Order: sequence, then C-alpha cells, then structure tokens
Amino acid sequence: MFLELTVQTNTREQMLDITGDIKKQLSKSSIKSGLCVVYTPHTTTAITTNENYDPAVKTDILHYLNKKIPSGWGFSHSEGNSDAHLKSSLIGAHETYIIENGELRLGTWQGILFCEFDGPRTRKVHLKFIGV
Amino acid sequence: MFLELTVQTNTREQMLDITGDIKKQLSKSSIKSGLCVVYTPHTTTAITTNENYDPAVKTDILHYLNKKIPSGWGFSHSEGNSDAHLKSSLIGAHETYIIENGELRLGTWQGILFCEFDGPRTRKVHLKFIGV
Amino acid sequence: MFLELTVQTNTREQMLDITGDIKKQLSKSSIKSGLCVVYTPHTTTAITTNENYDPAVKTDILHYLNKKIPSGWGFSHSEGNSDAHLKSSLIGAHETYIIENGELRLGTWQGILFCEFDGPRTRKVHLKFIGV
Repeated sequence: MFLELTVQTNTREQMLDITGDIKKQLSKSSIKSGLCVVYTPHTTTAITTNENYDPAVKTDILHYLNKKIPSGWGFSHSEGNSDAHLKSSLIGAHETYIIENGELRLGTWQGILFCEFDGPRTRKVHLKFIGV
Repeated sequence: MFLELTVQTNTREQMLDITGDIKKQLSKSSIKSGLCVVYTPHTTTAITTNENYDPAVKTDILHYLNKKIPSGWGFSHSEGNSDAHLKSSLIGAHETYIIENGELRLGTWQGILFCEFDGPRTRKVHLKFIGV
Repeated sequence: MFLELTVQTNTREQMLDITGDIKKQLSKSSIKSGLCVVYTPHTTTAITTNENYDPAVKTDILHYLNKKIPSGWGFSHSEGNSDAHLKSSLIGAHETYIIENGELRLGTWQGILFCEFDGPRTRKVHLKFIGV
C-alpha cells in the first residue's frame, strides 16, 4: 500500500510529529506484520525518530543544528539553503518501522518526526506499507 | 520473524558490536533472501554500521561526538540528555541489511553497532527478518 | 533481486550520482511495486539522497564536513581515516526507496548519491529489489 500525506510547516526549521497520521493510515490496511517506510521526497527536509513527549527535545535539536550549521556559513549554492540540504543528509530522508500485530512497534517515548529545514512550506510524505 | 534482543551497556557512551547476535538469530530462520531491519526503540541510542576490527574507530567516533556535542551545551530539556537525543537522530534509529544465501551481506570490515549515548542501561533491540 | 554495482571515485571526498544506474537495473526487473535498498559495504563511504541539479549542493556538503571533521583532528585510529568512518556513520550506510508503477518514487530534485570519504578507490554498491 502506497500513500502520500500532506504536511504544512509554519517556520523555517521545525520538527512535526506525524506518528498519529501514520498510525491512522496503517489501521485502515489489513497488514498485521511487515514494514512501514516513511520517506520525504524533498531535499531540504528529513525523517527521524525521537522523543515526542517533552517539546524541549525537538527545540534543542533544532537549536543546536541552527547554531552549528548556520545558513550564512561559507556555502556557495546560490539558493542560500545549503545548510538545509546538509541537515537533510545528516538526519536522512527515510526511516523504516516494524509492524507487528497490526501496529507500529515504536518505543514508549518514540514519535515519527518530519523535519523541516527550509520552510514554511506545504510538503509531502510518502508511506509504503509492506505486509509479510 | 520478529525478535527482541537485550543489550547491556556499561558506560554513558558506547558502541557495542551486535553482529554475532543478529547472525545467530538469522541462522535459526529459514530465510535465504530478504531484508533484516535492526531497530532501537530508545530515543537516546542509535544503530549504525562501521568497522569493528580496530576498536579505535569506535573510540574516535564517540570522542568526537562527545567533544562537539557535550551534554552541558546550551540545551533546555530538563533531563539534561539532549546531547544524547541529538546524537540518536544524527546516527539514526535503524539500519536495514540485505540477506542473500541465508547470510547478511555485510562488507569485510563491517559490523552492526548498537550506539548508547545515555547509559549505562539495559536496552532492547528489535529485529525483523523479511524473506522474499 | 540482488545486484552489485561498481563505482569508481576520483578524489578523497566525493558525492557521485548513481540514480541512473539504479533506475537502469530496476527497469530490467519485472517489479512494479516494492522497495529498493541501496547499501554500501565499505566503512568509509555512505549513501544519501539529495539534490543533484546544482553541483554546488554536493560541494557545499563535502566542504562543510571537511572543515568540521578534518582528518587531522585528535583521532587515535592508526590508519588516519577516522574522519571518514565518522562521516560514514553520520550520513549512513544505506537508503531505502519506494517502487511504484515500476519506478523509483523519488522527489523532483532528488538523486541517489554515493558518498566517498576516503578515496580515490574502486567501490561496490549493493542493491536489493523487493517486489510486493
């Protein structure tokens, strides 16, 4: 099963919890065991897994990346968003999750986070569910 | 096939070679061709692939991350382990390996490493083997 | 379907676009829907997804990593390439792509990039196509 989600970001750098959207799509399928690939088709965004309980975790990650990889660093790419491209490759364009008993096998504190590094924009997220 | 391994870490930051444990589980299955997803359900740990021959490689990686992302950096998360959450997202919560002829298709010098960034703790690793 | 590509790098640090090679191999298969895992079996290389239109994006990423993680940093690994091992774990040894309608579901500006951090060398890339 292949699906495309739409995500709206509101600022240049943001980590958006999309766990609920993905669980909802999975619940509509009949897959009990398998894999779920979460993939971003944009080159200045990323997908990661991290804590979604204390919002300070997300703020801290974005703050550190912003301080260490500022958009005004000595980059040459004319669009001025090389920092966002670099962050995208450091965090990564996809994550793969395990499905067991019809549910995502996440840890207690884990959420699936869409990372925006060059927003605000309307973005897409690709989901592929594989049953086995 | 879904499995949960238990891993014991002994210090705050550590890279533990779990290749042997995963190979052992694979050998118990009848899968000859497919994928193996190695996933950590914790938000201050990661999974990576790297050299497991010279232990200095692991020491060097941890030393660099520790120097550049110290726990005392200007983070706001009250638990004081934002450095560990950040390292987790930079390295990543999973790796996917190819299975051919009933074996993991690793490179000569590659090992599967469980990365602890907020230990010592008893941790879990999730394994999913997919046959095709 | 499992395949091994050969890649030749020409300098110590390089990002090589291998999208065309992978699309070509996929077109030879009969897979219409599934996953494609792109995996490097070397410990001083990585696989990433990023823009392949403006070459400055690749140059900027390599330039930043080279400045922030120089090979002469205080590493102890005797081969002198710990910087390359670290970059490999930061970017990651694999990426997974979604196959729909017989094609890789990449974004408009996305390419699949082989990252060399300790070249020049002749390298291998492992491909696994899974149909569902």
